[in-house]
Amino acid sequence: MPTPIEFWFDFSSPYSYLASEKIEELAARHGRKVDFKPTLLGVIFRSTGGVPLTELVPPKANYFAKDFERSARYAGVAYRNPTKFPIATVGAARAFLWLQSQDEAMAVRFLHAAFRAYFAQDRNIGEPEVVGTLAREAGADPVALARGAQEPAVKEKLKALVDESIARGVFGAPTIFVDGEMFWGHDRLPQVERWLASGPF
Amino acid sequence: MPTPIEFWFDFSSPYSYLASEKIEELAARHGRKVDFKPTLLGVIFRSTGGVPLTELVPPKANYFAKDFERSARYAGVAYRNPTKFPIATVGAARAFLWLQSQDEAMAVRFLHAAFRAYFAQDRNIGEPEVVGTLAREAGADPVALARGAQEPAVKEKLKALVDESIARGVFGAPTIFVDGEMFWGHDRLPQVERWLASGPF
Repeated sequence: MPTPIEFWFDFSSPYSYLASEKIEELAARHGRKVDFKPTLLGVIFRSTGGVPLTELVPPKANYFAKDFERSARYAGVAYRNPTKFPIATVGAARAFLWLQSQDEAMAVRFLHAAFRAYFAQDRNIGEPEVVGTLAREAGADPVALARGAQEPAVKEKLKALVDESIARGVFGAPTIFVDGEMFWGHDRLPQVERWLASGPF
Repeated sequence: MPTPIEFWFDFSSPYSYLASEKIEELAARHGRKVDFKPTLLGVIFRSTGGVPLTELVPPKANYFAKDFERSARYAGVAYRNPTKFPIATVGAARAFLWLQSQDEAMAVRFLHAAFRAYFAQDRNIGEPEVVGTLAREAGADPVALARGAQEPAVKEKLKALVDESIARGVFGAPTIFVDGEMFWGHDRLPQVERWLASGPF
């Protein structure tokens, strides 16, 4: 049984959203599962000197705002630039991890719902009520989630994942590992697919 | 007659090299010509706060060095990371512009030869002798080139192009304009192709 693809993401990353809409189908075409791993770009950027795409100097920020939209249309994915961007995603990431400890499929439903809420419906998934609503729609008890996401084990799990991502050289999102090979960016999905289809190149 | 695609490049940009190997064929598939326009990333980066890919923090620099090679293999383009990188490309850019003032086809032959010399044969095109050799191979008189590339008109032309690129929001290379629409990066060639094939999206 081949190992799963690791998909490192941050709920505030538009290109993570675009890739999240494609990665499971891509993996399935080559008999792979996807292991979704949240990290926090805010922490990573403090370690690597990175800045959020929209906090770049104006020419870059303007280009990326446009590129998000155009790349989404190119990919056939519903998208609108969120009113508030970026946002703190530690709450959504912890919610995902707690859900994952309960039921992997439910956690993945939540992941897609949260990305779509933020990047297609302009709902602020930095707000606990929005996270609760999305979790309920994914099949979870929002009261149990609110409590569970504050458990030390969940907080420590997220911290461990962020540390692991930095230790493994992750500096942006999405970052995909296939059998240890690192690919950064949704625009590397064609290379990921080549790797899965015919091995190292 | 549709307007040419504008291809803004710097001779020190690996992704410009990769795209330069594809852009004319891509354009020709859609009845377009390519207008090659040199700019200087060193000047652009001073204006936009950018840094050369390999002067980034280690995780990014390491990733990009690997990504250049892997993306070249993916594209089927001969490539090796140059020993000296980045280099000053003002001399090569002026040579290109002087050649262009003499004979467009000769200038384009030089452009491809210079990119391949630097990124496939590890020859330092920052050195005037290397530029002279490549220009001679492209069909130019290297003595006339050495003189011509120092003409005030050529220097002013390059300065005007760099200023124009900054004024139009160019912050990296390659940057491609199709009917005014801006695309940054060789990994946007599929979007360029969609745009050429079926119009704005």
